[in-house]
Amino acid sequence: MSSLDSITASLASLSITPSASVLHAETNSPTSWREALLATPSAPESFELIKTLVYKPKTAKTATPVPVVVIARDETETSSSALGKKLNLKELRLASEDLLAEFFSLDKNSISLLALNGDTFPKVVTVIDSSIASSSTPFAIHASSSSSTLFLSGADIVAYLKSLETEEVKVQEIDFATLKTEAPAAKPAVKEKEEAKIEGAVQIAIGVKKEVDFSAWYQSVLLKADMLEYYSVSGCYILRPWSYGIWEEIQDWFNKKIKAMGVQNASFPMFVSAKVLEREKDHIEGFSPEVAWVTRAGSSELEEPIAIRPTSETVMYPYYAKWIKSHRDLPLKLNLWNNVVRWEFKHPQPFLRTREYLWQEGHTAHLTKAEADKEVLEILELYRRVYEELLAVPMIPGVKSEKEKFAGALYTTTVEGFIPASGRGIQAGTSHCLGQNFSQPEMFNIVVEDPNDPTGQGKTYAWQNSWGLSTRTIGVMVMVHGDNQGLVLPPRVASVQVVVVPCGITAKTSDADRNKINDACDKLAKSLIDIDIRAKADLREGYTPGYKFNDWEQKGVPIRLEIGPNDLAKQQTVSVRRDTGAKAPIALADLKATVPKLLETIHNDMYAKALNEYNAHLKEVTRWEDFVPTLDNKCIAVIPWCEREVCEDDIKERSGRSAEPQDERAPSAGAKSLAIPFDQDRWTPIELGKTKCVACDQDAKRWTMFGRSY
Amino acid sequence: MSSLDSITASLASLSITPSASVLHAETNSPTSWREALLATPSAPESFELIKTLVYKPKTAKTATPVPVVVIARDETETSSSALGKKLNLKELRLASEDLLAEFFSLDKNSISLLALNGDTFPKVVTVIDSSIASSSTPFAIHASSSSSTLFLSGADIVAYLKSLETEEVKVQEIDFATLKTEAPAAKPAVKEKEEAKIEGAVQIAIGVKKEVDFSAWYQSVLLKADMLEYYSVSGCYILRPWSYGIWEEIQDWFNKKIKAMGVQNASFPMFVSAKVLEREKDHIEGFSPEVAWVTRAGSSELEEPIAIRPTSETVMYPYYAKWIKSHRDLPLKLNLWNNVVRWEFKHPQPFLRTREYLWQEGHTAHLTKAEADKEVLEILELYRRVYEELLAVPMIPGVKSEKEKFAGALYTTTVEGFIPASGRGIQAGTSHCLGQNFSQPEMFNIVVEDPNDPTGQGKTYAWQNSWGLSTRTIGVMVMVHGDNQGLVLPPRVASVQVVVVPCGITAKTSDADRNKINDACDKLAKSLIDIDIRAKADLREGYTPGYKFNDWEQKGVPIRLEIGPNDLAKQQTVSVRRDTGAKAPIALADLKATVPKLLETIHNDMYAKALNEYNAHLKEVTRWEDFVPTLDNKCIAVIPWCEREVCEDDIKERSGRSAEPQDERAPSAGAKSLAIPFDQDRWTPIELGKTKCVACDQDAKRWTMFGRSY
Repeated sequence: MSSLDSITASLASLSITPSASVLHAETNSPTSWREALLATPSAPESFELIKTLVYKPKTAKTATPVPVVVIARDETETSSSALGKKLNLKELRLASEDLLAEFFSLDKNSISLLALNGDTFPKVVTVIDSSIASSSTPFAIHASSSSSTLFLSGADIVAYLKSLETEEVKVQEIDFATLKTEAPAAKPAVKEKEEAKIEGAVQIAIGVKKEVDFSAWYQSVLLKADMLEYYSVSGCYILRPWSYGIWEEIQDWFNKKIKAMGVQNASFPMFVSAKVLEREKDHIEGFSPEVAWVTRAGSSELEEPIAIRPTSETVMYPYYAKWIKSHRDLPLKLNLWNNVVRWEFKHPQPFLRTREYLWQEGHTAHLTKAEADKEVLEILELYRRVYEELLAVPMIPGVKSEKEKFAGALYTTTVEGFIPASGRGIQAGTSHCLGQNFSQPEMFNIVVEDPNDPTGQGKTYAWQNSWGLSTRTIGVMVMVHGDNQGLVLPPRVASVQVVVVPCGITAKTSDADRNKINDACDKLAKSLIDIDIRAKADLREGYTPGYKFNDWEQKGVPIRLEIGPNDLAKQQTVSVRRDTGAKAPIALADLKATVPKLLETIHNDMYAKALNEYNAHLKEVTRWEDFVPTLDNKCIAVIPWCEREVCEDDIKERSGRSAEPQDERAPSAGAKSLAIPFDQDRWTPIELGKTKCVACDQDAKRWTMFGRSY
Repeated sequence: MSSLDSITASLASLSITPSASVLHAETNSPTSWREALLATPSAPESFELIKTLVYKPKTAKTATPVPVVVIARDETETSSSALGKKLNLKELRLASEDLLAEFFSLDKNSISLLALNGDTFPKVVTVIDSSIASSSTPFAIHASSSSSTLFLSGADIVAYLKSLETEEVKVQEIDFATLKTEAPAAKPAVKEKEEAKIEGAVQIAIGVKKEVDFSAWYQSVLLKADMLEYYSVSGCYILRPWSYGIWEEIQDWFNKKIKAMGVQNASFPMFVSAKVLEREKDHIEGFSPEVAWVTRAGSSELEEPIAIRPTSETVMYPYYAKWIKSHRDLPLKLNLWNNVVRWEFKHPQPFLRTREYLWQEGHTAHLTKAEADKEVLEILELYRRVYEELLAVPMIPGVKSEKEKFAGALYTTTVEGFIPASGRGIQAGTSHCLGQNFSQPEMFNIVVEDPNDPTGQGKTYAWQNSWGLSTRTIGVMVMVHGDNQGLVLPPRVASVQVVVVPCGITAKTSDADRNKINDACDKLAKSLIDIDIRAKADLREGYTPGYKFNDWEQKGVPIRLEIGPNDLAKQQTVSVRRDTGAKAPIALADLKATVPKLLETIHNDMYAKALNEYNAHLKEVTRWEDFVPTLDNKCIAVIPWCEREVCEDDIKERSGRSAEPQDERAPSAGAKSLAIPFDQDRWTPIELGKTKCVACDQDAKRWTMFGRSY
């Protein structure tokens, strides 16, 4: 095993200086490696990962194996069968951990071309992707462990390997691009990855196609649009103003609506003692594996560890019991805008699955179930409107199955979204009726005299709701609307709704003309600001109009207005829609009337497009044979279902077994129930006692959406 | 030592059932005990503490001492000299911990009358305050430890003690109220406490005078006005809607102002790794004793402990270095609204000193010092305006001494407030210039090419500011304006500015007349809401107008409007100002014109009153002999000062030595420098080289405010 020091020394002896050398969290996949590097400020802005694969050819059991070490760009397809053919070696298989340990004293996450040295190089066959040598991108290479990375140029890599060559053993260069075409057809999924890079994409552009490598696309859009920054604590992210501004718009809108319902905002502590946290058994079972614990302050150990809230039911309800003394104190309706922590060990994903996140959580207590029921739906309707009316993202409202309901709830209602690019459903906002579960005497004892009891002696326990909507909203919006040019922002939440870009200014343009155009842009932006449109003139010097177009397209600004000398002469501006690219001139005199309408049209068109996609992927499935193929076609299967938990478990297991190889980003490859839609009328009516459950053939109750999900 | 079980058993044998029995945090003073009980929802709503004092009379060294155990209400004055006289015992002194351990196996924080049992009772003299027996309040009594409390009635306490009596040893009842008058005059401070309870105060009222027991008054106002709730984790508090609404008003106002300055809101994670946190040495030295550490998630120990931000400099600046690549990326101006944690071990106080609190923190980076300097003052001016224009609380802007500046800053500016009731200064908001301290290469390396360098090779490090304003604002406002009726809210931030109360409705009033009055109130409130006044009609049934008056007075609503049958006949309403109690009729026709003006008048009057009080307590001091007396007179001493840190240390030490016995609530009894006011013109001009520092007689530089502080 080469230590970092000895690696650095041997590189130095070849006059090779890495362009950077960084330490980071341990990594166990290309994705986590890339993320760790993105979260390390001293890493280069752009880089490519190098993969080092070790294969073992079939050899006689008694013979010492000669491993094949393949060094390639992470995205290069390296077919082992084609390679075996080329090298005339039989049945190349990825080497076992034992073999790696034996040859290199490293595990598969830590191995890199730097494991090759004077000792090991002569004992293996080394193959390098011929496209590496000429590339100017810095390549990331693990240096002795999965938590350290050096950045070397292609030329440096080749120089290093060449330095190890002996009379007998040379490095073999192979052009994997050619090799691929020689080999039998690879699996389509892998082939597509090859094409993920967008032809001619420049540094500033997204660089990867949404339809080909969705998770790389998502990462790229968020970074390039200045929505997000990766952070040095895994699973935590920085929300930059471009995304946080969307959250502020959602907050403003939602605050107005809930205040009109009589809900008041408040603030509760983020800490909760173990004793209080564990009061409700079902509830804490749902959360305890993910609770973060503070055990130390300064240099003092705390007497008792204190939890950071994963949600605030148990933080708040002891005080509800204290404040609610009479039925006159009901309803009590409080809402918090705060941060919660769920220390998930699954792979994190910005906005969708993060260890700390921002949300609102509403907690209300009512005298009667009828009141509580009514509010649950009123809030769910607000969640639907946040998505549909602000973010232009269609939702299907419904109720969760018993298995999928909130831990401790009586029932959970949900607005369920859909991500066409991955074919996965997403729980987008939930409104729970907790029933009287938390108000029971052995729980929080939230009790009042029953005003409707004729004896005057009766007690009644409060009916409670809780409901939450998080910054997941933003991730869903990005995934649904974004395209290969970057983000596409729905107009109502965009921090900048209209950007005005001066055009047609060249080196020959006189200062007077330049000023005239810039002034026109400035004036135009101001006239829009006057009518409460969030407009901005981009008068930055030293950038071409093309650069600016690209910049604002990546950031998803709904409308670009261009003004050049010709436009000025005609007293017009040219509008360009971000969502469709459609161009149209607008007379300056009509601007104040036209732009607001155009923003509305864009919102409506974006919503309609997303709705069509959702509907097109919602498949009525009535035979089990069609169930998994429907999922594999990136669709949601809507089936007549018995609503039994045992059947749901069985569906998950059966659909998981036959599913495609699990994507590490995907929390579940088996299908789960997403929602039982309130609107059952869109499907063939279920005849009770006659229609059978598609999965188990027992009596079906309601049409239920099943799908892979986030 | 009696265990809790054996105590419960012996009480049960006497048929005594505690009205409640609770476990809570350990306590070491009446204040912390009361707070722990307030934070325990299952404790009774109202209670009194029982103190159990153990005295040792002077005895021959060889004799076995007979301790005197005094059982009294916590607020009762128990003069040991008067008691000794009464019992004919010499020189009663509080017993040592050794003696307590020997007799009762308990420490002084845990001892209670329940430490008396068949064993111990015969060995001591037991004295009980005679007023206990007849009281109906539940009394809090420690049961075997400082973290457990039983609640017993006065009669139960007496019954318990009587049960221990023997032929020889009886309980002695003493009327301490009478005893006091017999004894020589006690210290005034203690005497005043006796009078703290407001004559005839009912359950709903504040119950304690601001000028007599300020900290009990503060606690009571916050609870009775529904501003705050004590929480089960010490040092953390619940902000109820009545206080959180004020924070929302401040947020709205401040957001508008900073956005106009080009500041954008964002969100950064609450977690930070030890490595990053410790990057800036001075900075972390200032915070490390108070940092809370997460070391466990679910049941897994984290590889590395992770800190919760005490402030976000080190969280943010690595990314500033990443984002700022060119001078064109400057200025960068971000603001966060978030929660931070400083796990202080000093006594917490709601809003003023809490372990978790809400604030905004702005962090900006600039190309030049001039730009940074300018912004520091612009922000400070906004902080001044938040206090003066929203909260009607006067401020003095100035700069902090080197000793008092922010850890890691170049200089710190402050708005400094004053709490007349305690005579203490309070740091109310700070705006720091960090200089280039954090941007240095060995720190966060925030560097750009210098656009003004003629060679084009020069680099320049970013000039940085940070500035923060917290929910401390709310505490200061309560302390400054509140009175013996409760909270007094400044109109611009009050969640309810005007409350309309129907009057003159009696049992005889017909339903028609009742409806007429209620309708008039409702209509009146609506007509005010129409002109954006936050008005509310209090039409609750089953409450008298008197109850409602009191309720809204406690909650500090600026204007009450009353309407009774006579008012209705005259088409008028009677307005009552919360700040002055002044009553005046207003013709209903004039309401929309009069009420907004009246709200403005109230704001201005509240501000003027508070300003007069501040000015009256700001004393120009030019001789050291006057320094401590000025502080003891609850004033701030403004002195010509040399501005040397060694002199400041000396002042603190000398003024602390001679100070009154330290109040446990007071973070510092010695004086520190509060601010060097920008406006030096209000004091006699300092002649450089001639005017001497009041403390050390070296050359004075500027007039500086010194005082005791929070």
